[in-house]
Amino acid sequence: MKQSQILIPTKKEAPSDAEALSHQMMVRAGYVYQVSAGVWAYLPLAYRVIRKIENIIREEMANAGAVEMMMPGLLPADLWKESGRYESYGANLYKLKDRRDRDFIMGPTHEETFTALMRDSIKSYKKLPLVLYQMQDKYRDEDRPRFGVLRGKEFEMLDGYSFSADQAGLDAAYDKQAVAYRNIFDRIGLDYKVILADSGTMGGKNSQEFSAPAAVGEDIIVYTDGDYAANIEKATSQFTGVQQEGTPAELTKVATPGAHSVDEAGESLGMPSSQILKSMLFMAKMADETVQPVMVLMRGNDEVNETKLKNALDCLELTLATEEEAEQYLGAHPGSLGPVGVGQEVKILADEYVKVLVNMACGANDDGYHYINANLDRDFRVDAFGDFRLVQEGEIAPDGLPLKFTKGIEIGHIFKLGTHYSKQMGAQVLDQNGRLVDVIMGSYGIGITRLLSAVAEQQADENGLVWPDSIAPFDVHVIPINAKNADQMRVADEVTAQLEAANLEVLLDDRKERPGVKFADSDLIGLPIRVTVGKKATEGIVEVKIRKTGETIEVKVEELVNTIQILLQNNLQQA
Amino acid sequence: MKQSQILIPTKKEAPSDAEALSHQMMVRAGYVYQVSAGVWAYLPLAYRVIRKIENIIREEMANAGAVEMMMPGLLPADLWKESGRYESYGANLYKLKDRRDRDFIMGPTHEETFTALMRDSIKSYKKLPLVLYQMQDKYRDEDRPRFGVLRGKEFEMLDGYSFSADQAGLDAAYDKQAVAYRNIFDRIGLDYKVILADSGTMGGKNSQEFSAPAAVGEDIIVYTDGDYAANIEKATSQFTGVQQEGTPAELTKVATPGAHSVDEAGESLGMPSSQILKSMLFMAKMADETVQPVMVLMRGNDEVNETKLKNALDCLELTLATEEEAEQYLGAHPGSLGPVGVGQEVKILADEYVKVLVNMACGANDDGYHYINANLDRDFRVDAFGDFRLVQEGEIAPDGLPLKFTKGIEIGHIFKLGTHYSKQMGAQVLDQNGRLVDVIMGSYGIGITRLLSAVAEQQADENGLVWPDSIAPFDVHVIPINAKNADQMRVADEVTAQLEAANLEVLLDDRKERPGVKFADSDLIGLPIRVTVGKKATEGIVEVKIRKTGETIEVKVEELVNTIQILLQNNLQQA
Repeated sequence: MKQSQILIPTKKEAPSDAEALSHQMMVRAGYVYQVSAGVWAYLPLAYRVIRKIENIIREEMANAGAVEMMMPGLLPADLWKESGRYESYGANLYKLKDRRDRDFIMGPTHEETFTALMRDSIKSYKKLPLVLYQMQDKYRDEDRPRFGVLRGKEFEMLDGYSFSADQAGLDAAYDKQAVAYRNIFDRIGLDYKVILADSGTMGGKNSQEFSAPAAVGEDIIVYTDGDYAANIEKATSQFTGVQQEGTPAELTKVATPGAHSVDEAGESLGMPSSQILKSMLFMAKMADETVQPVMVLMRGNDEVNETKLKNALDCLELTLATEEEAEQYLGAHPGSLGPVGVGQEVKILADEYVKVLVNMACGANDDGYHYINANLDRDFRVDAFGDFRLVQEGEIAPDGLPLKFTKGIEIGHIFKLGTHYSKQMGAQVLDQNGRLVDVIMGSYGIGITRLLSAVAEQQADENGLVWPDSIAPFDVHVIPINAKNADQMRVADEVTAQLEAANLEVLLDDRKERPGVKFADSDLIGLPIRVTVGKKATEGIVEVKIRKTGETIEVKVEELVNTIQILLQNNLQQA
Repeated sequence: MKQSQILIPTKKEAPSDAEALSHQMMVRAGYVYQVSAGVWAYLPLAYRVIRKIENIIREEMANAGAVEMMMPGLLPADLWKESGRYESYGANLYKLKDRRDRDFIMGPTHEETFTALMRDSIKSYKKLPLVLYQMQDKYRDEDRPRFGVLRGKEFEMLDGYSFSADQAGLDAAYDKQAVAYRNIFDRIGLDYKVILADSGTMGGKNSQEFSAPAAVGEDIIVYTDGDYAANIEKATSQFTGVQQEGTPAELTKVATPGAHSVDEAGESLGMPSSQILKSMLFMAKMADETVQPVMVLMRGNDEVNETKLKNALDCLELTLATEEEAEQYLGAHPGSLGPVGVGQEVKILADEYVKVLVNMACGANDDGYHYINANLDRDFRVDAFGDFRLVQEGEIAPDGLPLKFTKGIEIGHIFKLGTHYSKQMGAQVLDQNGRLVDVIMGSYGIGITRLLSAVAEQQADENGLVWPDSIAPFDVHVIPINAKNADQMRVADEVTAQLEAANLEVLLDDRKERPGVKFADSDLIGLPIRVTVGKKATEGIVEVKIRKTGETIEVKVEELVNTIQILLQNNLQQA
């Protein structure tokens, strides 16, 4: 394709609000255009990348036995009222009304719509299992859209749903999706980790998250050089606590004026924070809608992991107590709370590392005072111990290797939903014994447009984008240095025709621009291979440059197709 | 693909509200699922058809030099306020607010968005011409969504836009799109007409509409067996009026009590309606916002064509006068109006057939009275004559052949927009002389999802859908009569493998259903070729049935691929 026929509005400067490298380069290279904050147009080059990703996904989904279809984006609110999410989904949900004042939403995800389709279409286990998917624009009214297309208000998503009458059907579909997702990300050339993600009370084996390490990632991934990888919310490390020695001393209340934090208390008391209990009061909304006050005890140098806590409590919601609630239940403000003398109405949980401490300090439930020499059982009770802490870098993972931290972009998530939606919405089938059973569902998602950001974050350099050949908008960029030189243009046209005849996709820079402009644009656009047609064109020699490595070689025109095919093949194997 | 793995929820009965054959059959055959009135899901079979259409469009757009990209569906209202359409578009526009109470719309079309992209991206004529397009879901809050996916609230559209700095660039892009559209519809196997469509004051040569004749079409197409085809609004016929003979008699006012229509007046006066003037008063809102009363005179047996009238007046809006307005300007009510004695403040236009009449009857501007023997010039004036009538079937078209009428579905429209949007939104480029000029635009559209309805309307029969091979979800339906018969299943698998190896797409009915159910479903689904594997499977013989003609032949398995390729090839040539 001739570059003069395609819209590639390259820019010298990135937008002032573009923090992320991917955002800067995708705008500068003329791939995307912002229509409104968090709302993007995908210009011709970006759209070619997207379609290549879609085609990779189609092939892998077909291998996994999944079938493509398309739901509408405009959804009647009634469906989401059935599931309860019309109210609970929050401010990210776009709500609108039609001309007859009926409520609609723009779909942020499609569990309800697919469940309704199943309910209305399938009556017998004989028609199951089924795995359906779509690649569709989703709408989420993000509070802080940012990093270009990484977090937008409208974005393309692969969302798939499996339906089966028994657990074995779900497990098989889930496992096939897990393989398909790995294949997809491998073929796209992404560095990614498959991580244990928190999925509420269902446990890690029912959910896997795929995350691409990147500087602007919004998640913290905890991993080892072995197989272990987990979200920070889910990550665990081996317990290395050792029972402290020493004799319990007398519980003593001391004034710690102005000490509102563990560090301040440690300074006031002359003790390390690891010996001071961090006592936090939470309010847990339980399944029966009652609200239970819960105190959590941690070593002062540990941070509480609210996800682990929430899972241990099996509660619907968990919020930190307000000053008023702390006052009501404990008679003191946060900063002076502690377990001594707390009544049965407050449940007390403690991190397992608290168990081994002797002569701890803790808040005295009296503003401005702490206890020292507090000891478990003698001075306070704990209702249950558990792992409630955020892991730290360097700790030993369950696989025996030290934990490392990196930021990651969530690119995919597969999830055994179970019967949550089918129960809510009445999607049942007759099983082999003629009994009505709830359909067992899985849901599977990949953020397609965000994959462009993830690849760009991982592979772009200071000169622009760098695309893996599998998803590059074109394979080769052919650049005649001087478009007014008839020889160069003739060779450029010949070279383009040869490459295209070999099924390579070529962008031919036929613009009458200065060479410097053409090369800078070429680096920005980031096609895998550049072919420069210059002075040696008349001798039948052109220059080939590999965008990724910067390596250049002179090649005879008659060997060009072969050379490029080998280069792309090698590139592919390296990815 | 195995039929057990794909969702095809066939039904014995069509929904009670399904009037159109295409709607009935697409629901019964399990192609579409209604999520809400006018909001549809495209199930796997329909989505395969859509993707085949998309691919045909992609190829033809590439041939026409158009480049694909993707705009968002969610659009800031500001863009539409710039063009004025936020207010003027009407109730079909979905409006919504984001979490910060800012106004957005869901795009029903994208002229504004593309104009903004040009304004922000292109500064010089050197970067033009450009033709950009997308295939995207559009949102229109139709008052009466109906006929299944033919008129829905969310539908996929190809919308393309051309941009050039001069008229020649527009003309070239428009001409290429016209060719591409014909190629697309030809390849899809549609019967269609390219018709002169009304496009306001810009004239027919700046707009072409593509319309598929169909019983449920919402437009009336007027055509001949030659090349002529036009919308009823635009259609003309040759003038065949002959000056009447006879001597003007004395103008006489006669009582016609109770005669409010031409027919009633004719009966009362004992005259044919063709001799009675139909006098209608319109209120025309002119470009300067003044409102001009206009009387139009037609033969009583002709119908006024308001589009022709509006174009002749070059007015912004044209509305029939209310009773009060008729009273104000003419002193009588509609039904008793006429041109005699009408003052200069009311403009009088007459259809050219009025010119040849002698001794006409007409309303007397006095309720309950008519004049007889009214004659042009002697008794009333006409400010201008013109063609203001709706043509009738059988009249002679401009090409000399008799006019025929049919209903049609609008499937495409190409349109020379000119500088309307670029002026409104300030999309300008520097021309060769360094002057700022408004970008000249064209817009081009095809209703993609509605093409499914159009094809189904034209080709379905009482047993179900019939797809042309170019867009059929699969080429061949392989049906083992008895899925429990190992021989039949083995041959069916072999046959499927052979056909797939020859690049044919096969749907294998591996379900354990009765043969009658399988055959009925197969007819509903409507793949071009059915291969039935029955008792003669052991002898290596299967039955091939052509869905379109119902013709069946027995074929040896080893000759099957070849036979089917020939059948599909022939089918293609017939389409």
